[in-house]
Amino acid sequence: MSPQKCDLIIYGSNILTQDENRSILTDGAIAVTGKIIADVGTKADIDLKWNSSKTLDVGNSIIMPGMINSHTHVPMTLMRGVADDLPLLTWLHEYIFPIEAGLNKELVELGALLGCAEMIAGGTTAFLDGYMFEDVVGKAVDESGIKAVLGEGFFEFPSPFFKTAKQAWETIEGLHERFLLHDRITTSITPHAVFTTTPDQLIESMELAEKLDVLWQIHCAESVAETELTSKKFDKRPLEVLCDNGLLTPRTRIHHCVDVTEQEIKQISASGAMISHNPQSNLKLGSGICPLTKLLSSGITVGLGTDGAASNNDLNMFEEMRTASLLQKGILQDPTAIPAQTALDLATVNGAKFLGLTDTGIIKAGMRADIIAIDMDKLHLKPVYNPLSHIVYSAGAQDVNLTICDGKVLYQNGKHFTCDVETISHEAEKAVKWALSRLKKH
Amino acid sequence: MSPQKCDLIIYGSNILTQDENRSILTDGAIAVTGKIIADVGTKADIDLKWNSSKTLDVGNSIIMPGMINSHTHVPMTLMRGVADDLPLLTWLHEYIFPIEAGLNKELVELGALLGCAEMIAGGTTAFLDGYMFEDVVGKAVDESGIKAVLGEGFFEFPSPFFKTAKQAWETIEGLHERFLLHDRITTSITPHAVFTTTPDQLIESMELAEKLDVLWQIHCAESVAETELTSKKFDKRPLEVLCDNGLLTPRTRIHHCVDVTEQEIKQISASGAMISHNPQSNLKLGSGICPLTKLLSSGITVGLGTDGAASNNDLNMFEEMRTASLLQKGILQDPTAIPAQTALDLATVNGAKFLGLTDTGIIKAGMRADIIAIDMDKLHLKPVYNPLSHIVYSAGAQDVNLTICDGKVLYQNGKHFTCDVETISHEAEKAVKWALSRLKKH
Ligand SMILES: [Zn+2]
Ligand SMILES: [Zn+2]
Repeated sequence: MSPQKCDLIIYGSNILTQDENRSILTDGAIAVTGKIIADVGTKADIDLKWNSSKTLDVGNSIIMPGMINSHTHVPMTLMRGVADDLPLLTWLHEYIFPIEAGLNKELVELGALLGCAEMIAGGTTAFLDGYMFEDVVGKAVDESGIKAVLGEGFFEFPSPFFKTAKQAWETIEGLHERFLLHDRITTSITPHAVFTTTPDQLIESMELAEKLDVLWQIHCAESVAETELTSKKFDKRPLEVLCDNGLLTPRTRIHHCVDVTEQEIKQISASGAMISHNPQSNLKLGSGICPLTKLLSSGITVGLGTDGAASNNDLNMFEEMRTASLLQKGILQDPTAIPAQTALDLATVNGAKFLGLTDTGIIKAGMRADIIAIDMDKLHLKPVYNPLSHIVYSAGAQDVNLTICDGKVLYQNGKHFTCDVETISHEAEKAVKWALSRLKKH
Repeated sequence: MSPQKCDLIIYGSNILTQDENRSILTDGAIAVTGKIIADVGTKADIDLKWNSSKTLDVGNSIIMPGMINSHTHVPMTLMRGVADDLPLLTWLHEYIFPIEAGLNKELVELGALLGCAEMIAGGTTAFLDGYMFEDVVGKAVDESGIKAVLGEGFFEFPSPFFKTAKQAWETIEGLHERFLLHDRITTSITPHAVFTTTPDQLIESMELAEKLDVLWQIHCAESVAETELTSKKFDKRPLEVLCDNGLLTPRTRIHHCVDVTEQEIKQISASGAMISHNPQSNLKLGSGICPLTKLLSSGITVGLGTDGAASNNDLNMFEEMRTASLLQKGILQDPTAIPAQTALDLATVNGAKFLGLTDTGIIKAGMRADIIAIDMDKLHLKPVYNPLSHIVYSAGAQDVNLTICDGKVLYQNGKHFTCDVETISHEAEKAVKWALSRLKKH
């Protein structure tokens, strides 16, 4: 039997497949045909079965699925470190909002490009976004080669961006149509939060989500402060508003869920809604600590997110995995909480479910070729007893030496192939002057 | 007036001096003469006053004092990731202790070299150690060019390493004499913990600390479990044992202080004893969360440490700074807790005090030239509003592009000048087989 032809074979010392058995292969190889993983196995096995003119040997590196960032606002990467260590309302009203009020499509695209480039370099191959001017975020995603679920955010109407609900729904439908045939981009319905919209708008927007058959994402139960604001406005807790209005559904994606009751956890679990956990952002904003262990043991699918770089201050999924695990161990005084495998699952297989993607997050024949590699020849990764442990507890975004999305090499050994990093960085530094001028005016 | 001669001038876009005013210089320069910082100022200023045949321009980089790791067991770097996610006693008795029981001088030196090389690459220029065979740790420190306070650990006698107190004190005095004239190495008295020694031994060892005029360091109040063990043995809380036996002194260095009462905090503060905070290790081992904010507001000098790489799993001081800050914000639900400047202070000026070093941790004329630089041309550090924010909330060990200790360049742009990284890595991988064979035998 002569070997079959494929477009690319990738070799590496270890493959964390994340398949049903969480198989870890030593001296592994992946055959890729077009955008699809054709086969996975040992080097010996794949070399027998497959033949490719293009090969990539990452040597002493761990190959694993590209990570999936379940919650971010990618254009906010432009506001990385603009202000920290402030009370939430001061941070929002004196820094974030004045800058956001002046944003235009060019700046949003620039921030999105910067964030996409950072995520690609750090081994993230897909993300769920929520912001304004998402059409240009889609442009950045298209150009950079990463995958995304876009979300044009909206607040209670009239808002600075939408005078009426009709205007918002038209924009959102337009965005949806624009990317309908795009292979790496889908859209979602994205109300900001319960306390910044109305139940009627939430219900209407869920109908739109059903009509377009897309995800419906919302910030919810991020902090005790949010619960208090919501209670004042509606005499209900944030998740109660969702539950009472039939907004907990299998297409519902809830960001944060820090201030959540046992009863609410049961309701979310029963509904099939999913939760994104954003540990570094929750800590940095003083929102509190999400009961991740409880959410998982109740059967809820939890993804992992960075939130925006203005409250993180990066888009580094390795840090989120580590923080998710360490934080639960510490807070529960239980070193067995969120073991390395669970942390990696949050960032890969769970992330894929969270984004509604059935063909990524796992290295397996038939799945999309969304693949990264981590250089194990780094000093801080020596020696190796267990590759999985190193990925979660020792490795960092800067150890990524290969990022492939839909079979295309986007990044290798410090070099971007789709992002003009120098121009993006230069333009981002120029934007600082603009942002600071807005703060002075304010 | 013609410029004075010096041995080295370092230029960089920003200098976080960490001086009394926490001055941040733009387009700064540092003149170095031998091991000493001769002058610090703007480039224009220094170029007028100083002349050197050797210059180092780190360009768009932040220059700051080398970081100081206040608590580690550097040879344990050899056990990085050997076991995680286990109950503490299983981890200790089935993994760490069986390996440690077989350690010899060669393996301890190898682990120390690996750890020193990792710390140097990550911008750490001094550390406080505690382990066995500290004479070879001293050898690794000497060769690698980093600074250390060594600590030959001891447990209740007879122990595997010391049959009698006399034998222990002789070894410790021998270690002290061996490095008495070394310019980068001092020693300390290092009882393991209250519950693994006896009050008499602690008192005797403190007398030795006074005789040698060195620091006296101990793990104390690391967890509720430790408190329970100690109470069973002595009918007292761990810090109570120290306090009641006159062991809270200005030369006392306490590692962890997680399970600590308000009363105990007052006693530590009044005594002049200092505390090392090790947030990632405390989380990973499920020890709990140290009340860092309270310790600092009570006036205690708190340093920052990684603890050993077996419970971290790296020696990355950037991660400790970030975790120290984020954790307090989250647990207190207060985004203003441990601002970036405080986190940086823990790792620099406080670390110097913790190690008993009066001439480092600050970039200022007359101080030792312990200097690092962080490359700001990285994507995840774009754009820059505030260099200090990026150091604490966005940068990582791998952004370090220069490490100087006592005026000597130890590391630059990925290259070590004092550590044979390839041989160390190779030998460390070989040690894995040895370690695993010990676990099988056990
Ligand atoms: Zn968010
Ligand atoms: Zn320790």
